[in-house]
Amino acid sequence: MAGPLEGIRVLDLSWVLSGPFATMILSDLGAEVIKIERLKVGDISRGNGPYVKGLSSYFLSINRGKKSIALNLASEPGKDIFLKLVEQADVVVENFTPGTMARLGLGYETLKEHNPAIIYAACSGFGQSGPYAQKPAFDVIVQAMGGIMSITGEPGGPPLKPGVPIGDIAAGLFLCIAILACLQERHLSGQGQMIDISMLDCQVAIQENAFVRYLATGELPQALGTRHAVFTPFQVFPTRDSYVAVAMMGGVSDQWPLYCATIGRPDIIDDERFQTGWLRTQNYKVLEPILTEAMKARTTHQWLAELERVGIACGPVNTIDKVANDPQVLAREMFVTVQHPKAGSFTVTNTPIKLSRTPSRIEKASPDLGEDTSKTLKEILGITEEALADLENRGVI
Amino acid sequence: MAGPLEGIRVLDLSWVLSGPFATMILSDLGAEVIKIERLKVGDISRGNGPYVKGLSSYFLSINRGKKSIALNLASEPGKDIFLKLVEQADVVVENFTPGTMARLGLGYETLKEHNPAIIYAACSGFGQSGPYAQKPAFDVIVQAMGGIMSITGEPGGPPLKPGVPIGDIAAGLFLCIAILACLQERHLSGQGQMIDISMLDCQVAIQENAFVRYLATGELPQALGTRHAVFTPFQVFPTRDSYVAVAMMGGVSDQWPLYCATIGRPDIIDDERFQTGWLRTQNYKVLEPILTEAMKARTTHQWLAELERVGIACGPVNTIDKVANDPQVLAREMFVTVQHPKAGSFTVTNTPIKLSRTPSRIEKASPDLGEDTSKTLKEILGITEEALADLENRGVI
Repeated sequence: MAGPLEGIRVLDLSWVLSGPFATMILSDLGAEVIKIERLKVGDISRGNGPYVKGLSSYFLSINRGKKSIALNLASEPGKDIFLKLVEQADVVVENFTPGTMARLGLGYETLKEHNPAIIYAACSGFGQSGPYAQKPAFDVIVQAMGGIMSITGEPGGPPLKPGVPIGDIAAGLFLCIAILACLQERHLSGQGQMIDISMLDCQVAIQENAFVRYLATGELPQALGTRHAVFTPFQVFPTRDSYVAVAMMGGVSDQWPLYCATIGRPDIIDDERFQTGWLRTQNYKVLEPILTEAMKARTTHQWLAELERVGIACGPVNTIDKVANDPQVLAREMFVTVQHPKAGSFTVTNTPIKLSRTPSRIEKASPDLGEDTSKTLKEILGITEEALADLENRGVI
Repeated sequence: MAGPLEGIRVLDLSWVLSGPFATMILSDLGAEVIKIERLKVGDISRGNGPYVKGLSSYFLSINRGKKSIALNLASEPGKDIFLKLVEQADVVVENFTPGTMARLGLGYETLKEHNPAIIYAACSGFGQSGPYAQKPAFDVIVQAMGGIMSITGEPGGPPLKPGVPIGDIAAGLFLCIAILACLQERHLSGQGQMIDISMLDCQVAIQENAFVRYLATGELPQALGTRHAVFTPFQVFPTRDSYVAVAMMGGVSDQWPLYCATIGRPDIIDDERFQTGWLRTQNYKVLEPILTEAMKARTTHQWLAELERVGIACGPVNTIDKVANDPQVLAREMFVTVQHPKAGSFTVTNTPIKLSRTPSRIEKASPDLGEDTSKTLKEILGITEEALADLENRGVI
């Protein structure tokens, strides 16, 4: 079934993760995403382990559903083909160091002359402007520089990285939002524009709460283990056999009395120090040993039953294998198996975007390097078999 | 200057974080976002600390630029006003437990009768379907259940939470993408549809690499401190005085020889066990003590100078105060100060979406509860002063 982005054509020059993660979402939603890759080498993430029958599982995951054209953008005929594709496309995505495309003679100003409606989406470590614009950056660098490692970990412990490449993922998500917002605007103006996403900027954006707390109070946000900076309890506790997550908001529907009764500590319900989520956070040093002690009394299974019975939000701390087999995750069809000509059956994560009228379905595996070169150039540009053979001989495709 | 979403009207029934984070992005991009809040209480995050002149900094951050209408949706005249607003709107956003809107008589099927083009965006802990659909959930619960805590932390250590509420943030970002994708589709079909976003699904989506590694190899992903699951070195090292992040990809442009020479270990350049990023990851137990020892020899400042000189990606591990004063972050104008009638000058994080032709600007602070009720109902629905006074007397607005 066609997704909501049916009919949108994306030329994707991006590599590794931030750009490809954004175009994966666009592809999952029905856009035609054409990866334009270097001859012979391609997206370097094609070399990343672990491997499935010699193919990169890393690459297979985020490039499902896309097409691949191998094209030499350093050659004049290669540039010419690219510009002709731009004339027939809606979006160009790239995540090179700023200035790379302009040096190739393929910067936004040039592309705009060929297609004023083109949406040119650039993603980079630090953005197209500012003193760091030309510095190299990868996920872990912007995570370190953006502050998230300083607020992840045990209180007083060393800096830690969230278990996902949030430097790339956050930038990819904002890149995707920016592209779609420009598509909406283009329906009114008929014009495209250039998008400038910085991975570091996106780190600031997702930490809005930490920055606003710091700017409002001058207090430096710290790593808090699994705790919340505002609400208590809103964290993971050790239980008799493992861990359990428990959460409640403060305010009018505060479940604090219910929680105290459930854990066998009705005596602290009316303690003045614990009357709101924020007060409990302020007085955490007093409260922590009480709650930790109480939560050790039962197993995770027992706590889940007790807390669910009274309607308090709770959950187990799952490992990846448990999540992959979780009844809810399976009911939501969050995994899809596609057939790859070489890797065979390969399972990828599904889109979390579930739509009532135009749901999309992931059906195609990731492309081999240049798999779609001939077919796509014939279909979109009408290039003949003879001309294609000539281009191949000259090292253009 | 008008942003790309100028002219899009969003009725926002959502509260706390996932929904409001999504509508913050829409508002930052120029959409008109009208918060519809409960009389007297409003969005419960209005009560969250820390406080600035008695107002919630938490609320002030994510609700900048929005309008607020206080409306009693349990009353018949309140429902009637809401449905009339739906007729004049593009998007409705809610993040209640599934079924809440239908019980109010305001489910998607009803809204669609009033406006077939309405895009109805629902976000919930576990989604509108599946065995957990009715369970309560907050950020920390879906983070625990989604697996990210099991891959965040020190190897062998307790589960840890990333320093941002990634359960809410990831869902908010996907919600925003879904809304914009449906807007694009509506230009072709003229029809709206219902969006069903689950916070747990979004956790799976952002961990695609961990899930695919597990599904492809059967090996359970583990917490790795600051390391990357595929590349080495791609992590934070302790230095003589603090920490430094260093990263390189494997593949054709592998900087391994350059790095070894820079850290004074040219002897390991040709070691067979370290010839690719993936091999170095496989042999990390041997490599770790060598690199850790070498990196302790200099200060962070010295390493940054040395590594930058040879073009190896690197960066300091910044705390939030350092990021807030970073020259690059300031050059990108990632903070904006708005004037709030009661809180005074209040600084919020800016949008990371920088556009060449229709940039948007955050100019308005967050609204007081019901601040825009009269003005908005007059403007959009043409309700008279007399009728407004009557509605107020009857406890509807």
